[in-house]
Amino acid sequence: MKKFLNNVDDFLTESLAGFAAAHADSVVLHTEPLFVRRRHLQPGKVALISGGGSGHEPLHAGFIGRGMLDAACPGQVFTSPTPDQMIAAAGAVETGGGVLFIVKNYSGDVMNFEMAAESTARKNATVLVNDDVAVDDSSFTTGRRGVAGTVIVEKVVGSLAEAGGDLQACQAFGDRVVKRLGSMGVALTSCIVPRAGRPTLVLGDDEMEMGVGIHGEAGRRRCKMMSANAITAELLDAILTDLSPARGAEILLLVNGLGGTPLGELYLLCDAAHRRLSADGMQVRRTLVGNFTTSLEMAGASLTVCLLDQEILEHWDSPVNTPALRWGA
Amino acid sequence: MKKFLNNVDDFLTESLAGFAAAHADSVVLHTEPLFVRRRHLQPGKVALISGGGSGHEPLHAGFIGRGMLDAACPGQVFTSPTPDQMIAAAGAVETGGGVLFIVKNYSGDVMNFEMAAESTARKNATVLVNDDVAVDDSSFTTGRRGVAGTVIVEKVVGSLAEAGGDLQACQAFGDRVVKRLGSMGVALTSCIVPRAGRPTLVLGDDEMEMGVGIHGEAGRRRCKMMSANAITAELLDAILTDLSPARGAEILLLVNGLGGTPLGELYLLCDAAHRRLSADGMQVRRTLVGNFTTSLEMAGASLTVCLLDQEILEHWDSPVNTPALRWGA
Repeated sequence: MKKFLNNVDDFLTESLAGFAAAHADSVVLHTEPLFVRRRHLQPGKVALISGGGSGHEPLHAGFIGRGMLDAACPGQVFTSPTPDQMIAAAGAVETGGGVLFIVKNYSGDVMNFEMAAESTARKNATVLVNDDVAVDDSSFTTGRRGVAGTVIVEKVVGSLAEAGGDLQACQAFGDRVVKRLGSMGVALTSCIVPRAGRPTLVLGDDEMEMGVGIHGEAGRRRCKMMSANAITAELLDAILTDLSPARGAEILLLVNGLGGTPLGELYLLCDAAHRRLSADGMQVRRTLVGNFTTSLEMAGASLTVCLLDQEILEHWDSPVNTPALRWGA
Repeated sequence: MKKFLNNVDDFLTESLAGFAAAHADSVVLHTEPLFVRRRHLQPGKVALISGGGSGHEPLHAGFIGRGMLDAACPGQVFTSPTPDQMIAAAGAVETGGGVLFIVKNYSGDVMNFEMAAESTARKNATVLVNDDVAVDDSSFTTGRRGVAGTVIVEKVVGSLAEAGGDLQACQAFGDRVVKRLGSMGVALTSCIVPRAGRPTLVLGDDEMEMGVGIHGEAGRRRCKMMSANAITAELLDAILTDLSPARGAEILLLVNGLGGTPLGELYLLCDAAHRRLSADGMQVRRTLVGNFTTSLEMAGASLTVCLLDQEILEHWDSPVNTPALRWGA
């Protein structure tokens, strides 16, 4: 294992210290319990809190800021954060509008966020993200996994909260967006969890894991390496079969790198996806390409399709100012 | 070799097509000859043009937009673009203010940009970037290599051009910034050039290349893996020995990933660098962390220090709106 680290036990705290130092103007790191929050809160706004195991950076802390999250609770690598983190974060960023927890559907995360939701004194609601169409039930999940589509949920619900949407409206909007999301990923190499020190999954030199989870969980099948066009077709077919969009539907496409794949290859996948979606009669109205929901150093990528409507499009386009996603005035 | 591609000969054109599709609102892709340009030009502004071999994405095309470049000329992977690309780009984006070529110091790039500078009918000047303190002369270079500091040059000179600086002022500012820049990188794994299909450098399971170039060129030494603190100390010592800053100097720190290193590890390096610089009496005023000047899927990172003054700081902070770097109004 070759990684930039000092003591493996300090990996998370040192990494978060670097994050807080780099973005000291906009975020504050709290320890014991561990969470990251916006430096400047907006009174009365619904507070958006997410979190989950580390190793998926920039998810979630990279999306703290105006137009997205108010706080994020990082667990150890691929390990759920604990309820005390979420309760403390809620206490720190709730300013009268209540708390919306955005939770990726993994059993540990769901259980811990539920405990926090029951224990916090703050009014709260939860949006559960389960956009991964690859498999029902998985190593750490009952039901579908929550993956890169989470970024879209955090962006558009964050925008609604910023615009004054109340807790009920934000939750309802989040639930609606989740139903219009589908994702699937493929791994070309494994990730290595620092504490484990060895690859999570063992792939041959000509193999890939189609439908992989963001922790290296098994997907639909282990298969031989294919062309970018063939991989794109298989991912999009799975997603569109699940979403059943109308012909001519307007969509948002997210081409997400899993960590170890060069940006040039992600743009090549983007080209393949645009060609395929166009041939399928879809209209790609917005595209985002980059590493947003990663799996440490895994080489691979996922595609996410979100079926747009006017409300989702407006909240996607609205200004956002976070370390990892930033546009608009 | 496992990469997302169709035909290796189409790698660059497909990747650029995906880039143009994802950013169709702000960039235009030209083929024959190949270059990427801003969609909306500003009459009379000095036009900034950069370029070089592909494989370093988002450099350079990712930095096209308001506040940075007007055009970029991509060569094949790790191969210089040709003068006809630069001449065509100059003709397309020069609007009366002349052209400033920003060139990384590699022999092929230097030769081809010189030919373009002599052949174009447009008034022009050149800034040569040679920020890599690791070695004098290298596989593809006479003198020091140009690496991640190029992003800082493109940002601050782009800002001056946007503010109305003329060609001479932009060139002089660029030359001045280059003298205040130092970078050094380290590779934990090799990259694989698609056409070659095999690793550029062969590193043992416990080895790293200290002072590596962004094409996998040899650095200062091949050595055993060290802690993040020790790596950071060696990189910063080399940079600060070169720059000889005054005690208390204000600096901009760039922690740049070479492609295959997870963001969490880059932030850990950022923490180590902040601690070390602070102990050395430096004041880190600005920090940028991420993949900006990559070497395909190479695991590794580089550190860049820029000695700030008021003018550089103001042009660093000014608004920028490009696919890969974006902030401000």
